[in-house]
Amino acid sequence: MPTVAFSAVELRARSGRKWHRYADDVLPAWIAEMDFGVAEPVERAMRRLTDEASYGYEGSTLYPALAEAFATHMQERFGWQPSTEHVVPVADLVQALFTLVSAFTQRGQGVMLHTPIYPPFLDAVRQTGRGVVEHRLSDDGRRFALDGASVRDVLNQDVPLLLLCNPHNPTGRVFERDELEAIAAAAIEHDAIVVADEVHADLTYTGHRHIPLASLGPEIAARTVTITSATKAYNFPGLRCGLMSFGSSDLRERFRAAIPDRMLGIVTRFGIEATITAWRDCGGWFDEVMAQLHANRERVARFFASELRTIGFHAPEATYLAWLDCSGLQLPGGPYEFFLEQARVALNDGADFGPPGRGHVRLNFATSAPILDEILERMARAVHHL
Amino acid sequence: MPTVAFSAVELRARSGRKWHRYADDVLPAWIAEMDFGVAEPVERAMRRLTDEASYGYEGSTLYPALAEAFATHMQERFGWQPSTEHVVPVADLVQALFTLVSAFTQRGQGVMLHTPIYPPFLDAVRQTGRGVVEHRLSDDGRRFALDGASVRDVLNQDVPLLLLCNPHNPTGRVFERDELEAIAAAAIEHDAIVVADEVHADLTYTGHRHIPLASLGPEIAARTVTITSATKAYNFPGLRCGLMSFGSSDLRERFRAAIPDRMLGIVTRFGIEATITAWRDCGGWFDEVMAQLHANRERVARFFASELRTIGFHAPEATYLAWLDCSGLQLPGGPYEFFLEQARVALNDGADFGPPGRGHVRLNFATSAPILDEILERMARAVHHL
Repeated sequence: MPTVAFSAVELRARSGRKWHRYADDVLPAWIAEMDFGVAEPVERAMRRLTDEASYGYEGSTLYPALAEAFATHMQERFGWQPSTEHVVPVADLVQALFTLVSAFTQRGQGVMLHTPIYPPFLDAVRQTGRGVVEHRLSDDGRRFALDGASVRDVLNQDVPLLLLCNPHNPTGRVFERDELEAIAAAAIEHDAIVVADEVHADLTYTGHRHIPLASLGPEIAARTVTITSATKAYNFPGLRCGLMSFGSSDLRERFRAAIPDRMLGIVTRFGIEATITAWRDCGGWFDEVMAQLHANRERVARFFASELRTIGFHAPEATYLAWLDCSGLQLPGGPYEFFLEQARVALNDGADFGPPGRGHVRLNFATSAPILDEILERMARAVHHL
Repeated sequence: MPTVAFSAVELRARSGRKWHRYADDVLPAWIAEMDFGVAEPVERAMRRLTDEASYGYEGSTLYPALAEAFATHMQERFGWQPSTEHVVPVADLVQALFTLVSAFTQRGQGVMLHTPIYPPFLDAVRQTGRGVVEHRLSDDGRRFALDGASVRDVLNQDVPLLLLCNPHNPTGRVFERDELEAIAAAAIEHDAIVVADEVHADLTYTGHRHIPLASLGPEIAARTVTITSATKAYNFPGLRCGLMSFGSSDLRERFRAAIPDRMLGIVTRFGIEATITAWRDCGGWFDEVMAQLHANRERVARFFASELRTIGFHAPEATYLAWLDCSGLQLPGGPYEFFLEQARVALNDGADFGPPGRGHVRLNFATSAPILDEILERMARAVHHL
């Protein structure tokens, strides 16, 4: 039962970075995983593997089944039917970002992304010797808006790649059709490639609709690499399985010529079977998770609208992440340090999300109601002591 | 009990490529894994993980423990104490080969290797756009010899990297000190880098001694990347965990500048905990495996010395692989196809191991005595029907 989350004591007794990176009196609301364990069918599937204890070579023999499960899930959730032919598994989507940037750009070229942005996007560009080309989302007072009209001004011969994050981490935006169409038109016009990280797509709240970029039409699909994983929505990042879905054989071949498949390593049977099980058998568990996340999102929204109005907040349209503008707090240092030290709450430091992230923190609210209450109350107490 | 190997029926009932790639009437003696399952402590460690079902982010938090276990195992087995500082985990050693070739050479440059050679060595060179520069081992009638004197004639500015496989796959040679010193001297003289794949080191038979290349001295260590894994000797390739041990911080930094760590993906807790358990707690199991492999090697040697003398064979000094020279058989086609079709035994095709592999096959004898007998008898019958 995901809605009955583990207690803090139980969570600390388990392994993993989320509950062990900070001192025991700190409540972790940082790294994007949920305090809900995994669905029972996933647990059972993993136990079946260790009961069988068959640890010989599988190679890529399980990859076609993974590609099938992916295509079926996309069809069911988003009415999008990707090809199963050009699916390449990876250990995680950060590996995908790094290799795709390497494959589709040259050192010194620029890569466009929408800041504030999940820090590995910036790492993937900088650590491969490419240049970050920011296209900033702007807070229009209601939400973070993407200026579709100006995308075409950013892409050019020296900026041949856009890393799209949709739903967007950290703002929780689910980009709408007109925003995506502006991106598609600009990419086509400039012969650019788009990597669309859609890993949070399942976590879209009622009232919003996730549209896979590659579903807009064949022309944009042919230049889009969609990257996704079941590990976010079904909560098993430690099992390490994601995939890249190339929208055309041309794109797939260009990638293969730059990065031979064996350079990626091979994903384990644990990751693949967990993913297939999640997408096939865990819809009930996931619905309960979404109900809990929805309740938590309302709790967070009420809280920032009443008890901590000095912090700017727009309820996310997807994800269990809240992007908090703390610039109105007039803190002596940064808000990440302030909340860690004064509230004993570990958030993600907005400064890591690019220049517009300064003065912000990212809060992960995928936990039980009592822990979430404690997190919010600690934050309020710390601010009120200022 | 590893010495009581599974029956063919049991093996076919398990998952994995070895027993499923070919039709059910074919006995598999190809891919390098053993029909012995894994040690009980490894089974238990894996079951502990699925009992806990804690599948959150670990990131690289377990990497230092893996590096420690590696250094301890190298010290215990080979009297070599590598640094724990410059250890980088990978999913498998083929990923290591591909990334190391990419990092330390330019497209168009040559990479030296000792043919016949494990096919992914050739793939790692060719698929990254580098050139294969062969240094052939020669059959001196007793074993495959490495001509140390000529190594220095092969390395040069355009051939700045040597991929060493020691113990050597497929010939089973364990190179001796003078052979290794010739390699070291040539690499130092030409300012070349050596990647030493020593994954078969544990599988060295009594009477031979594996010497890690990097243990020869600080000068060669500083230019050596040793790659290894517990998955070969402890038989869990499906868990996907290997490592690269850089012999100097300079080498490590050069690699990092070319291939950012996150491009490699992150190894799972399953692979890391299995590896640590294998190296720490499975010596008894491994001794039994070696006793069984030793008996099998004797069986194979007797067989080719008596019943199939037309096939050339030198008993391997390490590994459970027999490299068979079938050029004396005067087959109409290749020996791989002949034994697959006429004997219903699946071997590895020597032609995949580079030009000197033509006319050869590689036989995996890591199976139970009855299955091994059946394999050898089928081969003999097929040859005698010629």
